[in-house]
Amino acid sequence: MSVLIVGSTALDSIKTPKAENPRLLGGSASHAAVAASFFSPVKMIGVVGDDFPKRYLQLYRRHGIDLAGLQVKPGKTFHWSGEYEVNLNNRRTLLTELGVFESFTPHLPDTHKTTPFVLLANIAPSLQHHVLDQMANTKFVVADTMDLWLNIALPDLLRLLKRIDGFVLNDSEAHQLTKEDNVFAALRKIHQLGPKYVIIKKGSHGSILSGPHGFFICPAYPLHKVVDPTGAGDSFVGGMMGYLAAARGSVDQNIRRAMIHGSVVASFCCEGFGLNRTSRIKRAHIDQRVRELEKLTKF
Amino acid sequence: MSVLIVGSTALDSIKTPKAENPRLLGGSASHAAVAASFFSPVKMIGVVGDDFPKRYLQLYRRHGIDLAGLQVKPGKTFHWSGEYEVNLNNRRTLLTELGVFESFTPHLPDTHKTTPFVLLANIAPSLQHHVLDQMANTKFVVADTMDLWLNIALPDLLRLLKRIDGFVLNDSEAHQLTKEDNVFAALRKIHQLGPKYVIIKKGSHGSILSGPHGFFICPAYPLHKVVDPTGAGDSFVGGMMGYLAAARGSVDQNIRRAMIHGSVVASFCCEGFGLNRTSRIKRAHIDQRVRELEKLTKF
Repeated sequence: MSVLIVGSTALDSIKTPKAENPRLLGGSASHAAVAASFFSPVKMIGVVGDDFPKRYLQLYRRHGIDLAGLQVKPGKTFHWSGEYEVNLNNRRTLLTELGVFESFTPHLPDTHKTTPFVLLANIAPSLQHHVLDQMANTKFVVADTMDLWLNIALPDLLRLLKRIDGFVLNDSEAHQLTKEDNVFAALRKIHQLGPKYVIIKKGSHGSILSGPHGFFICPAYPLHKVVDPTGAGDSFVGGMMGYLAAARGSVDQNIRRAMIHGSVVASFCCEGFGLNRTSRIKRAHIDQRVRELEKLTKF
Repeated sequence: MSVLIVGSTALDSIKTPKAENPRLLGGSASHAAVAASFFSPVKMIGVVGDDFPKRYLQLYRRHGIDLAGLQVKPGKTFHWSGEYEVNLNNRRTLLTELGVFESFTPHLPDTHKTTPFVLLANIAPSLQHHVLDQMANTKFVVADTMDLWLNIALPDLLRLLKRIDGFVLNDSEAHQLTKEDNVFAALRKIHQLGPKYVIIKKGSHGSILSGPHGFFICPAYPLHKVVDPTGAGDSFVGGMMGYLAAARGSVDQNIRRAMIHGSVVASFCCEGFGLNRTSRIKRAHIDQRVRELEKLTKF
């Protein structure tokens, strides 16, 4: 089955203590769509300006991503610029130029409206709603978010939580949303807001699923060196959704291995700037790291 | 086989945002010895003052801990007082009264000098050396430490690392020792300092082993509520050493399951003040949580 992914499509200028890389392919939808493409057909919904480099469209196409839902508008592509601190754990935004993204209204081609797996990657909750409004007969809908929406669009987000099957957020967002320091206590509270599946991302510490069959503690793949963590969370959830859409059986049966595969794609994402590393791997590289994770966690 | 444990034996007065508990049984040796006692016979080396409550000696004895190496000296027992912040992640020391601990010289009874498994729990590296100087024919020696010794006794600690098989420290100490933010890069550097096995503790994020057969990612048992994390690290390494001493086969074969058992004992430790919870459990409670961890990590 295929997965529909809506989110931001952007140009990222990223500064780390060791390097500076202007106008990389970025955005939540870009990272999630490429990650998902290793497992299943992907339909991407987004908007770019007429300055969007052709090579990035070619990159999407090389990954077999259906671009019928990608709008190309006169104007500039969303441009984000950020700087990471020495340990790569904290980043600050230097610049945000919304460009054509400012007036983005996701519009689904008819062929996309019954896609069974839906990933509402990080984007304003009102746009996530707008996508769901156009869909029918979905099988599994997951939303990601960020602290910004908790700050400026909480009512929209809370309404969204009642419409989705799974919700993905990081540990500090979980704390912000629930006022709970304890991640397991936070998970319980988030279920009460609606979603049956809740996943809390903890960066290099892995992630935790809470679902109908209890918790799953999902490890991160060990990396000796992180080059650029931008998009790792999007790669994680994108890889997970791609794996789920491709797998036989129920979401319940597959979600743990789906998270492991997402976790591995995220590890590749961290090893290069933007999509530089992720866009150069093959499914076999992912499967190799999944086997390693099996060995690294066995007891 | 049995395990010899040297470390501090103290009275802990612990304040959390929710409660205040004076003069609990504490100290690295107390936590580690009780944790190890669920698995194998324990010989404890330490010192207490003549004010040390009889009920705490009885607690040690109920756990079958051999107290031949516990000195009782005229004067006051080491007293530590600390306060935890709201999220229990940070603590500050309010008071440290060394008492009889100030002049502590660990002295090993002849019956203790060939104990195969040795845990040098958190205590000054010079005292850890002093214990090793008295021993022969050890099979597996592990040392724990704390940031204080990295600050004031680094040369002693570095000398110790060349004499031990395993070294346990937390992530911030690993960073302090190696200047590496990345935990896997830090592990590599610590091996170069001597120990064949290095374990980095990450609190609620679990722990990571680096040994002759590569890494092991060890989960923490999920707790909805942490009452008092004091002693959790000592419980982890104590439980691990007790399990190793009891298990048939090589350390290599057993260390992963040993860490899992240590992790579970640490989870009980966090559920009560001091040793209140740990001292009330049975082996069956530990085995139950180990089985749960197996389910929580399977994919």
